[in-house]
Amino acid sequence: MSNKQIILHERPTDAIDPSLTSGTFRLRTVPRPDNVPADKVLVRVHYLSLDPAMRQWLSASRSYIAPVKIGAVMRGVSMSRVVAVGKDLASKFQVGDWVSAYTGWQEYAVLGKDDVEKIAIPVGGRPTDVLSVLGLTGLTAYFGMIEIGQPRPGDTVVVSGAAGATGMVAGQIAKIKGAKRVIGLAGTQDKCDFLVKELGFDVAINYKSPNWRKQLKAATPDYINVYFDNVGGEILDACLARAAPFSRFVMCGAISQYNTSKPKGPASYMNVISQRVTMKGFIVFDFAEKYAAAREELSSWLAQGKLARKDHILTGGLESAPKALVDLYAGANTGKMMVEVAPVNETEPRAKL
Amino acid sequence: MSNKQIILHERPTDAIDPSLTSGTFRLRTVPRPDNVPADKVLVRVHYLSLDPAMRQWLSASRSYIAPVKIGAVMRGVSMSRVVAVGKDLASKFQVGDWVSAYTGWQEYAVLGKDDVEKIAIPVGGRPTDVLSVLGLTGLTAYFGMIEIGQPRPGDTVVVSGAAGATGMVAGQIAKIKGAKRVIGLAGTQDKCDFLVKELGFDVAINYKSPNWRKQLKAATPDYINVYFDNVGGEILDACLARAAPFSRFVMCGAISQYNTSKPKGPASYMNVISQRVTMKGFIVFDFAEKYAAAREELSSWLAQGKLARKDHILTGGLESAPKALVDLYAGANTGKMMVEVAPVNETEPRAKL
Repeated sequence: MSNKQIILHERPTDAIDPSLTSGTFRLRTVPRPDNVPADKVLVRVHYLSLDPAMRQWLSASRSYIAPVKIGAVMRGVSMSRVVAVGKDLASKFQVGDWVSAYTGWQEYAVLGKDDVEKIAIPVGGRPTDVLSVLGLTGLTAYFGMIEIGQPRPGDTVVVSGAAGATGMVAGQIAKIKGAKRVIGLAGTQDKCDFLVKELGFDVAINYKSPNWRKQLKAATPDYINVYFDNVGGEILDACLARAAPFSRFVMCGAISQYNTSKPKGPASYMNVISQRVTMKGFIVFDFAEKYAAAREELSSWLAQGKLARKDHILTGGLESAPKALVDLYAGANTGKMMVEVAPVNETEPRAKL
Repeated sequence: MSNKQIILHERPTDAIDPSLTSGTFRLRTVPRPDNVPADKVLVRVHYLSLDPAMRQWLSASRSYIAPVKIGAVMRGVSMSRVVAVGKDLASKFQVGDWVSAYTGWQEYAVLGKDDVEKIAIPVGGRPTDVLSVLGLTGLTAYFGMIEIGQPRPGDTVVVSGAAGATGMVAGQIAKIKGAKRVIGLAGTQDKCDFLVKELGFDVAINYKSPNWRKQLKAATPDYINVYFDNVGGEILDACLARAAPFSRFVMCGAISQYNTSKPKGPASYMNVISQRVTMKGFIVFDFAEKYAAAREELSSWLAQGKLARKDHILTGGLESAPKALVDLYAGANTGKMMVEVAPVNETEPRAKL
């Protein structure tokens, strides 16, 4: 049996080229590792999470995590199921268990017990929720909004990339926490309609409309108390220009800047001084010891119908991952971008032990 | 008797023009207000404080304080002495008392009791200290470094505008608080020598030398834990590129950007995310309730010789204030820039009451 993998072929300088024959990545087929060591499990990947941070993992510059090596399987988290259990782990895992793990972009992976997290899918939940609203993107929204943004009743909150996996959760949490006015920025009219009609945002602005800056100004008569930034660039700049005194700028992502070798700083940054803004960057991993409590609260909001989810799942198999990543940067998704490598209920040939 | 005043004539779009006949300001002579109302004091201005923030007070854009009006006396704090006391204030003030007040750029001012702060010059101190190391610039350094920068033993601390009034105090406070390595950036070799030889900075870098970025990199092998920014622009960008994980960026000023209508944002701002930087802006006025305690600590450091002071006093009288301001932005000063409007011991004709 075989295992398809997508490996990094060359570091992009600007945009990612999704072609598997001439682009950033290559497809490779290796044997499926069926002789599972005693202290490992073999898992089959069902859903890959596609995340804006991936572009930075491809870059050799200093970051919070080492870059993916040339020739290595592309890094990524997935929801996978256990296919075979090494004998020392028989008390911990069963065939069929759902696990979340950094399997990377491949069909199968052999992992130690510390590299997989066994997941009980919440009642009413789906395996894919564990990659989206209850996964790293939902947790990113949760910690960014609650720990850094700290929205208070009466606040005006702006979220960019609002129809993305993190943005949509961030905006909904601001509403749950009593913000007076939550404004989302997104790149199509459909996304804007979705934010207002389905997620309860007060205002949504299409940043591709020529007068979006004017609309942002009109929508923030009391200026901006919390800005949750997923995009950077011009939108960050416009929000800094509208920063309220003592506002909090949650620096989560900069998707508009990842694919350029010459990022642009926000010219209005001097408002950080005059308006006493706190701009604070964070990485969700910093809050790992609080994941369980956060997931519990997110699950309860989901169960109570306070938090709506939306996923964008490509079904073309592993090979569609590079294109999904390019689509993500182009804003093709509403909600969490995932790739279905294998459907949930696909029968799995039993591995030899 | 007369009172010379310098008034704002027109808002500069870029640089300030110091000419009093064709530039940003005009000289006006009005009668000295000798009939002091019962609830006021008449003060004579001795020393004017020149501060980088002044450029923003001239601009009509939104800030933490209203802009100076066209035709109004230029705003500014001074050390002044009481010349005449209204009869209701006779128990509070005596002729000859030193006061600190926003007199603006003029020779005399009539002020209510809440608009003047009576100052006891500390033993061993000078009246000018109250505008520099014990004044708003010293307090700015104090609160910015202690409340936001929070240098810890072992930290690498970088200060820009390090030979300016705020920067030199900020760097010294970092040393007092146990920072391992304090690096100052300044614009001449003389200033750099002064920082290292007289103030105890570990390294000083002349940012006008062509390889200053390389020098900064070499001086920060463990990256930067605290950056105290007085200048913005390229230096802020270079320091962001060297930010250590969880570093604090004290956003105090942006003197390199004040005189341009097109400020430049820091392209390396994405490190705010990956390195979890906290960039926090502040205005010294926010800490007003803590001034007394801070002045006491600064005075004790001064008395113990832990804190060195350096002033740059122009003696050309009131008329030299516009030029002093332009010099300030050009970096002509080492230490606190002031204008002597009248020497300390000049005899004062007694005012009529």
